[in-house]
Amino acid sequence: MNGAQSLFKALTSANLDTCFANPGTSEMQLVYEMGKSDSVRPILCLQENVVTGAADGYARMAGKPAFTLLHVGSGFANGIANLHNASRANTPVVNIVGANATYHQPNFPEHEFIGGNITDVARAVSHWTREAKSAAELGSLGAEAIRQAMSGSGRVSTLIAPTNCHWDPAPDAPVDVTPIATPRVAPATIEAVAELLANGRKTGLMLGNHALRNEGLELAGRIAAATGVQLLAETFPSRLARGEGRVPVQLVPYFLEMAQGFFAQYEQIILLGALPPVSTFAYQHSATSKIPPSCELAVCASPDQDVLAALDDLANAVGATQETVARCPRVEPDAPSGPLTAAGIGQSISLAMPEGATLVDEAATAGLDLYIHTAGARRHEYLYAIPGAAIGNGLPVALGAAVACPDRKVVALQADGSGMYTNQALWSMAREQCDVTVVILKNDAYAVLNVELARVRDDEPTEKMLSMLEIDRPSIDWVKISEGMGVPAVAVNTAEDFHREFQRAMAEKGPRLIEASISQDLQPVVDLILAQQRGS
Amino acid sequence: MNGAQSLFKALTSANLDTCFANPGTSEMQLVYEMGKSDSVRPILCLQENVVTGAADGYARMAGKPAFTLLHVGSGFANGIANLHNASRANTPVVNIVGANATYHQPNFPEHEFIGGNITDVARAVSHWTREAKSAAELGSLGAEAIRQAMSGSGRVSTLIAPTNCHWDPAPDAPVDVTPIATPRVAPATIEAVAELLANGRKTGLMLGNHALRNEGLELAGRIAAATGVQLLAETFPSRLARGEGRVPVQLVPYFLEMAQGFFAQYEQIILLGALPPVSTFAYQHSATSKIPPSCELAVCASPDQDVLAALDDLANAVGATQETVARCPRVEPDAPSGPLTAAGIGQSISLAMPEGATLVDEAATAGLDLYIHTAGARRHEYLYAIPGAAIGNGLPVALGAAVACPDRKVVALQADGSGMYTNQALWSMAREQCDVTVVILKNDAYAVLNVELARVRDDEPTEKMLSMLEIDRPSIDWVKISEGMGVPAVAVNTAEDFHREFQRAMAEKGPRLIEASISQDLQPVVDLILAQQRGS
Repeated sequence: MNGAQSLFKALTSANLDTCFANPGTSEMQLVYEMGKSDSVRPILCLQENVVTGAADGYARMAGKPAFTLLHVGSGFANGIANLHNASRANTPVVNIVGANATYHQPNFPEHEFIGGNITDVARAVSHWTREAKSAAELGSLGAEAIRQAMSGSGRVSTLIAPTNCHWDPAPDAPVDVTPIATPRVAPATIEAVAELLANGRKTGLMLGNHALRNEGLELAGRIAAATGVQLLAETFPSRLARGEGRVPVQLVPYFLEMAQGFFAQYEQIILLGALPPVSTFAYQHSATSKIPPSCELAVCASPDQDVLAALDDLANAVGATQETVARCPRVEPDAPSGPLTAAGIGQSISLAMPEGATLVDEAATAGLDLYIHTAGARRHEYLYAIPGAAIGNGLPVALGAAVACPDRKVVALQADGSGMYTNQALWSMAREQCDVTVVILKNDAYAVLNVELARVRDDEPTEKMLSMLEIDRPSIDWVKISEGMGVPAVAVNTAEDFHREFQRAMAEKGPRLIEASISQDLQPVVDLILAQQRGS
Repeated sequence: MNGAQSLFKALTSANLDTCFANPGTSEMQLVYEMGKSDSVRPILCLQENVVTGAADGYARMAGKPAFTLLHVGSGFANGIANLHNASRANTPVVNIVGANATYHQPNFPEHEFIGGNITDVARAVSHWTREAKSAAELGSLGAEAIRQAMSGSGRVSTLIAPTNCHWDPAPDAPVDVTPIATPRVAPATIEAVAELLANGRKTGLMLGNHALRNEGLELAGRIAAATGVQLLAETFPSRLARGEGRVPVQLVPYFLEMAQGFFAQYEQIILLGALPPVSTFAYQHSATSKIPPSCELAVCASPDQDVLAALDDLANAVGATQETVARCPRVEPDAPSGPLTAAGIGQSISLAMPEGATLVDEAATAGLDLYIHTAGARRHEYLYAIPGAAIGNGLPVALGAAVACPDRKVVALQADGSGMYTNQALWSMAREQCDVTVVILKNDAYAVLNVELARVRDDEPTEKMLSMLEIDRPSIDWVKISEGMGVPAVAVNTAEDFHREFQRAMAEKGPRLIEASISQDLQPVVDLILAQQRGS
């Protein structure tokens, strides 16, 4: 047995059966092992940020990690942005990164970085990082990478595997992939939180991570029924059980000023699996917390603790075991008509998206209306694509989610500017015949930046300023790009046309793209922000 | 004056007049400053690896750096691969990376990495990295970034600029962008090398970096004429003066086994601006040096030293000031016909590419024949796209080179698999109406990996193995992708059709793409390598 075989044995022993890959020379021995085996399905992606983003989407839906195959430092670097999204979402991912032979690295061949090694770079987005030093340890490090990835709510593990560790002999040792126990919240903390819930103050229970999945929300719904607490969700949920019959929960708004308004009504906020809500960016003369100073903040469980157990314990502590839980109603809006808007697209989704679908959201500025208008859709799993705010994860997450759950229709709401970052994901969708309907929200701009530019300018924007925010010259033809990678596509710009095409996509299996040119007016948002900014 | 204004003043004081950008919220104050000014041309790119690769191509042709505008850690990370290429090519690049306000970073907002800060990641591919701590130092750090970038043969500088350092007040201080002096080679070293050139041994003078540009090659040509030394070039030259009338120089082969054969004839190799030639990857049972142990290796000048001065000093030391220099002849082949091959494309380029063109090479396996068959083309500048071997720099380098020298026709030879990495560069070419002709060498595979797989397998490859190397399901339609981003395109698969379309592209201005489906047989290369591997 060689090192590559011992690593492959560790991966398959843990039942990691899906590999997203863009291999190169230093990964050939693993390509060889995978190619001889029936245990792993390799999915080739044309750029590494697709590889890592697909692994993120896969694990969010499969409940177990995929592994990635990445080629040396630059290949890993190409995948950092979506590993950042995964690490901020606590998604379990196991990265295997090929590297130059340990004895060749000091020769400074072309792939070596000038100012560091792969480990230095990998640490930024990995909870656990190791570079193997010999074939003898490659298998056990692989097993440790898996155990680490499966711990807590989920973690990103990165194992750097030099080529000589692949081909040198390795022991055929037993593999231990026993998961590391997730720390539980102390009973005293649960009791203290139960007391907070009974103190009569206006309270929000802000949920994050696994607390927003169906099992967690069911428990939270009982707690809410028993105590009257409002259920809130972190702004960027990795996976949220949503739609008809699900427990209702309010998303904390993205924009600082809207969030401050949202939280103004609360006297205390209790975090359960969520981090303290802060502004994505700081602004001159603004606070960074979304919660006003008058509101108390308490932590029930951090994302790294066992949040489901915490919810269960808390439900027991407040006597909420038999409560009747509030449920989201089904809403069947009229079919939309007229100019195409995000709201109209939301109506179509609400009408036509089948039960059990996965709804991937990287809709950016169109997302506000889309979120509101899909609340009454049939039961679905909502994946916010970019929990780390690094754009370009929508299409990869949709790819991975479709691979994980082939029987669920995937609908990917993708802003155009962000979508271009990883358009290569379309090719893998075509190759794997994924059941994904991509909706490109086309506004020919990085529209959110108009809001951000308004914050810093004193006068009217010049054409030159706007040229750095707008992508309308030339306007991108997503139908051609999509067809160029093998995904059938159509362009629409009325609500009626969108509705017809979306219904058709829902009725058929396989990948499909709808380029939806939308009418959008962000001026009210700009006005609101400027008014609050000047008032503060 | 605020910090953003002081930084902008430093950049424009140094005459940095081109900015490749993908800005976000944390760069809005610089967008605002650029938008108010006529001093800088901002070029928007749809993904950061296009931004950094274009900055690489720009500086190789402009002889001065562009600056980049990158958004936080994930935006920087997206551009690492091509900064790696730039850093390995000693290309001057000045990166400005927006970051969260210094006081907001500890709040762990979404863009913060879980395991490090931007500086940790930036160091891997930057010769100089600093994060500003206050607005007061932003301007002087900007000036230092420029001075560092202009030192030696060229360096990558990265300045991380938190948003509060943009908006806080800053002094309007004088800007010092005096270049740092480049270290010269000691006279004793020049004398020792002159003695080596006279010792009667079969000698190769292996040139790298600026020694391969026209001024350097002219000096080297005189040294060769006076001493009989063979002029060799590093395998991955960042810029090589080439074609009719240029001083002939032999490229060290890429494949280890071919390079070993190439060097077998030499008794000593002298490095001047080049690193010791080693294999890109180590292989089991193979040496890592391309030079046999029997061959002596001496260093005249490292890439960080003043290589032009070293060549001048060496020419004087060997009395080569008045020599008649050998010149590459013009070759006018017959127009190619029949099935389309890399050789045929090379013939068309040799016939039709105008004088003074820039030839960008990321042709991968097609590159061997293309290089041979363009040796007798009209005078041109040859840019090997990926000196750091990180694929996906061909289209960005072509973009940057066209922006730097709008009067030079750019021909970009781009392998299909690598080209998909940064296809977004086509959009910026269309937007800026760059005079670039992209030739996609389409073989529907990461073909070089067939060679690499052959090294590790004992038996025939399975279909599953090959599925990880081949990109033919679905076959990518580059015409549609190109048109989707606004670049007119055509597909050809015969030598006659290619020749006609290439001639047309050479006769017109503006961006154009030719998808060239090529017939390719790599079996002879595989056979050669396997024979040598088994023999060694």
